[in-house]
Amino acid sequence: MSAVNNKYAVRVSYLGTNYAGWQRQPDAVSVQQRIEESLLKLGENCAVTGAGRTDAGVHAMGQVASFCAERTWEPRKLLLAMNAHLPDDIRIMDAQQADGDFDARRSALWREYRYFIYHGSSCLAPARPFVWWNRYDWDLERVRAACRLITGRHDFRAFCKATECPENSVRTLLRVSCKRVGRMTMLQVRGEAFLNNMVRIIAGNLDRVGRGEVPPEWMGGLLSGADRIESGMTAPPSGLFLWRIGYPIGGIK
Amino acid sequence: MSAVNNKYAVRVSYLGTNYAGWQRQPDAVSVQQRIEESLLKLGENCAVTGAGRTDAGVHAMGQVASFCAERTWEPRKLLLAMNAHLPDDIRIMDAQQADGDFDARRSALWREYRYFIYHGSSCLAPARPFVWWNRYDWDLERVRAACRLITGRHDFRAFCKATECPENSVRTLLRVSCKRVGRMTMLQVRGEAFLNNMVRIIAGNLDRVGRGEVPPEWMGGLLSGADRIESGMTAPPSGLFLWRIGYPIGGIK
Repeated sequence: MSAVNNKYAVRVSYLGTNYAGWQRQPDAVSVQQRIEESLLKLGENCAVTGAGRTDAGVHAMGQVASFCAERTWEPRKLLLAMNAHLPDDIRIMDAQQADGDFDARRSALWREYRYFIYHGSSCLAPARPFVWWNRYDWDLERVRAACRLITGRHDFRAFCKATECPENSVRTLLRVSCKRVGRMTMLQVRGEAFLNNMVRIIAGNLDRVGRGEVPPEWMGGLLSGADRIESGMTAPPSGLFLWRIGYPIGGIK
Repeated sequence: MSAVNNKYAVRVSYLGTNYAGWQRQPDAVSVQQRIEESLLKLGENCAVTGAGRTDAGVHAMGQVASFCAERTWEPRKLLLAMNAHLPDDIRIMDAQQADGDFDARRSALWREYRYFIYHGSSCLAPARPFVWWNRYDWDLERVRAACRLITGRHDFRAFCKATECPENSVRTLLRVSCKRVGRMTMLQVRGEAFLNNMVRIIAGNLDRVGRGEVPPEWMGGLLSGADRIESGMTAPPSGLFLWRIGYPIGGIK
């Protein structure tokens, strides 16, 4: 006799502008809270786990969240019902039944973030909520050299919010690349796991390299146990998107 | 002795969501009003002419506006000064001195609009303010056949807001094409001039063709003096962007 499996995984997109981030906060509205509230309205009182804890103002194209429901839901019906109770700026894009031991956070193999930078003296108005408006242009070859240096397994202590740095700050970046389309630079960072503010501090440091303040090798130097204080600014959250989460085949699609 | 030429042309981008359209309205805030107000703060009391009169909620990447200033401005300084007084959702992207007889509206050779449709049962949240969220999928080949039929010089009476239709409703569309990227369809319409709501009614009719309600030829039939009542719905303004305005070489870049 097998126990009833009511574990679900949902893919979520959101516009982070009006939220205090993914995670529940005592005094501010979070995406997690809004999703749990939508489930509560369906009679499901359960905690939701997200694959990535996005900061305040950060957007998501493919956040993944998992939860255990009381009832058994037809996934398509669950999607429509949740969306009916969610605000327009949070949308369930896909819902699936998952294995009983699936956990959006612990089961994830990698997370991919994308960061968009708009270069120019004026920022295209419709792009404003989704980019870091940067008045300086970047030398793409220099930026790419720096991206290559930080790819792989390193101590990213200098790339973590100082007050939130864990004992072990070694992380593995699987891919760090950079594309330019018109006045927009798109930075793609895929890693097994991330430290607090890590992608935004990477973007802030690439800015120093890109505008010629420091050589690409300086970025490599930050990986040898450098302190947060030695590295550059934290780029604004508006340009950051949690893009996609990777799971083992058979986890969820 | 030549008169002082203080005619300027500016390229403007805006997020139309919070505006009653381009044109000044007695009881609502328009983009034109905000731009004229920014000039007033610079001591320039002048009326601004826009190349395209976008409807309420319609966005712009490359609207062009012209005006006659009292003083002579260094174009780059004018751009920065105007942006300093404009809200974030309206941005001057470029400023140039123009010929004395340049008029953003009358000098334009063509206008290009782009219309974005997101197909799917849930709409990606960050895309929501910029698309027509359409639950139905489109058959692209059928839509393209209809696009070909309406390209050229025709009577577009059936594609004009009934209460705003001029005596002469013949217009020339230079290019009507359609691209699909993932769940998004991008409709590109370039024409010498447009009737009221024309692109949005084209999108509404293409929807009938695309989802298989009527054959592409039905769209062609609407060009033979058909009435507005015979054609489809007006698609929502959120998906529409005034993309680019074409001028004769030497007009403005």
